Amino acid sequence: MAIDNEIKIPEDSRLGGARSVGIVTTQYATFAEPPDQLELDSGQRLGPITLAYETYGTLSAQHDNAVLVFHALSGDAHVAGYNSPDDRKPGWWDLLIGPNKPLDTNRYYIICANVIGGCKGSTGPSSINPQTGAPYGLRFPVITIGDMVKAQRYLVDYLGIEKLLAVVGGSMGGMQALEWAVRFPQRTAAVLAIATTARQSAQGIAFDEVGRQAIMSDANWCEGNYYGSATPSAGLAIARMIAHITYLSDEQMHIKFGRRLQTRDALGYDFSTDFQVESYLKYQGDSFVRRFDANSYLYITKAIDYYDLTAGRGSLLEAFSGVPAEFLVVSFTSDWLYPTYQSKELVRALQANGISTTFLEIPSNYGHDSFLLPNEQLSEAVSDFVDNIYQRVHSVTGKSR
Amino acid sequence: MAIDNEIKIPEDSRLGGARSVGIVTTQYATFAEPPDQLELDSGQRLGPITLAYETYGTLSAQHDNAVLVFHALSGDAHVAGYNSPDDRKPGWWDLLIGPNKPLDTNRYYIICANVIGGCKGSTGPSSINPQTGAPYGLRFPVITIGDMVKAQRYLVDYLGIEKLLAVVGGSMGGMQALEWAVRFPQRTAAVLAIATTARQSAQGIAFDEVGRQAIMSDANWCEGNYYGSATPSAGLAIARMIAHITYLSDEQMHIKFGRRLQTRDALGYDFSTDFQVESYLKYQGDSFVRRFDANSYLYITKAIDYYDLTAGRGSLLEAFSGVPAEFLVVSFTSDWLYPTYQSKELVRALQANGISTTFLEIPSNYGHDSFLLPNEQLSEAVSDFVDNIYQRVHSVTGKSR
Repeated sequence: MAIDNEIKIPEDSRLGGARSVGIVTTQYATFAEPPDQLELDSGQRLGPITLAYETYGTLSAQHDNAVLVFHALSGDAHVAGYNSPDDRKPGWWDLLIGPNKPLDTNRYYIICANVIGGCKGSTGPSSINPQTGAPYGLRFPVITIGDMVKAQRYLVDYLGIEKLLAVVGGSMGGMQALEWAVRFPQRTAAVLAIATTARQSAQGIAFDEVGRQAIMSDANWCEGNYYGSATPSAGLAIARMIAHITYLSDEQMHIKFGRRLQTRDALGYDFSTDFQVESYLKYQGDSFVRRFDANSYLYITKAIDYYDLTAGRGSLLEAFSGVPAEFLVVSFTSDWLYPTYQSKELVRALQANGISTTFLEIPSNYGHDSFLLPNEQLSEAVSDFVDNIYQRVHSVTGKSR
Repeated sequence: MAIDNEIKIPEDSRLGGARSVGIVTTQYATFAEPPDQLELDSGQRLGPITLAYETYGTLSAQHDNAVLVFHALSGDAHVAGYNSPDDRKPGWWDLLIGPNKPLDTNRYYIICANVIGGCKGSTGPSSINPQTGAPYGLRFPVITIGDMVKAQRYLVDYLGIEKLLAVVGGSMGGMQALEWAVRFPQRTAAVLAIATTARQSAQGIAFDEVGRQAIMSDANWCEGNYYGSATPSAGLAIARMIAHITYLSDEQMHIKFGRRLQTRDALGYDFSTDFQVESYLKYQGDSFVRRFDANSYLYITKAIDYYDLTAGRGSLLEAFSGVPAEFLVVSFTSDWLYPTYQSKELVRALQANGISTTFLEIPSNYGHDSFLLPNEQLSEAVSDFVDNIYQRVHSVTGKSR
């Protein structure tokens, strides 16, 4: 997620606006207390696991209207509304979530949790390791997208939801949506996989690895033991700047910045900031280090790079075998991080399994970040798809009462 | 230039091969001695300026067969042949330069000089500043592509060449070729601009700036005063890794590496190297820091980012007004650093000026690096274009004798 700093907040998303969920409180729940720890894909065990989460709307009596939203790399549980009246910005997907919005909180019960490995309230490398009384640092086990969804299953159980109406996510959130559908095929009716991939590409791994190297070669990183001291902020800022370029598009950068100068009316002939695009990137890097933990960045990008839905499952075709959910797959024309051809691979494997699949490639200049920005086509597709599923599921559960 | 480490050397390019120029010696010449220093585009003055250069073939009696080759960001004067019998690899464009090769040294006199700002024998930030007796470091003035070609004009004058047959370059070398044609329109008959652009894009600036930030935030950088101490090698390696990704293509990285693991038969669940693509990138970074100066990287990327052929010239159309040379413009389908649309902008402006222009978009998976790799279409295009120019120029100078 990149340009959330810049989203112009529509009137109806503003605090007090008729289509805002208003003030929401982040909640916390703890699972996997020893000795019942979570067995991770690595074979290691993790627990206790605290998840920070938010919910919006009301769970129906039939528990048939729950939608689990997964966040991307730098996201968190706060997907809609405001945590306090002083908040300047709403949650990261407020455009889609609220009364009479595509994921309509008058109708649906929306859940979003911070991933494990994160730094926004869920257990991660900056959390206290109960065995040592100090932050985990690199003692935190390397986790996978599969581990993220296994942790979130605790929450779904805890909330008393046997079967979700839908799982929804963009980017790394889309990976979690796919993984949920394959790991827990009976536990969602629908999957919305947006601007995502079934397996991280070599180019994607390459960008992430350079970011990790930037963090790990920062003299303040200290093998991850920097809590309470100076943080590897320069390395993390560089990692963020690299990643940020991959969230935009060549065309959008040309339109937005071109070769325009930042403050001076001529080239500076020095190594300070000449161009607006340089200033913008530095701002993105600097603001990111104030809100994100460098070790979490290592762990989450590693989970992304490890992501391969086919691993241990033979092929994409076999991975989706027997999955009963319906799918909406969305890509954006200018997304070169998870390009359309990767979505089409997904769609081919789904269709070959006879799975009901809607595929939409949305024209957009905004690159990978398109999924976070106002987009009529995305809003309509999400709204129509989920409403459709809801009508069907609701008529069934209505009958079964 | 990226994957020269990996080029398989064809039999006829090997030392002793019939199509190799064999052993060549890098030469040095010094110009712009005070008080006749070079006035740079910044208004600062630089001198004395030493240029490292190599030549291949023999200058004709009419001085009408000289071809000036410009190198890219990390290149040098050693474009063909071997500097010693022990060299494992020939010069960086040996594929194109030698007896009976596209730039045929039986016919042409080829010149290549290391750019100013560089670290391969020409005056740059690691050179001794005669005013202080110590390396320039950041006292070296910020230079432009225009300054690079102005410095090389001294060499062309020194070699007694009034008019070059052709100027040739790929990537930053192509920028120099374009700049030469516009700055010194009477001093070349032809221009070969390969995998290049008339102005660095916002995305290109962004990638370069992140690389510079990686260098400048390395604790060893010390505002550029690291000569004789530990060098900012971690930062330079990161800069190189970022840039290296932009030299390849998504498709080629998929073919070459995919998600293949490096040494282990399973994921490591740690932050060491899992994937071949990670290992490859680290190797590229590590080997680069042994052969390149971090300050030169700053200066040369800055020159690239400053490059805008239209600056001070109104438009691309106006920039090429009155340029008498003929042009060959070549792009590669998978080059996303200098994509085809940027070459087409060049071609449109050239053709609108009535300039004889040949444009070729070559299908290739190898991304920006395509121009450095064996490619039949590139070889043929260069050979045909230069031979054609030579026939015409030679018949004229032949008559005028």
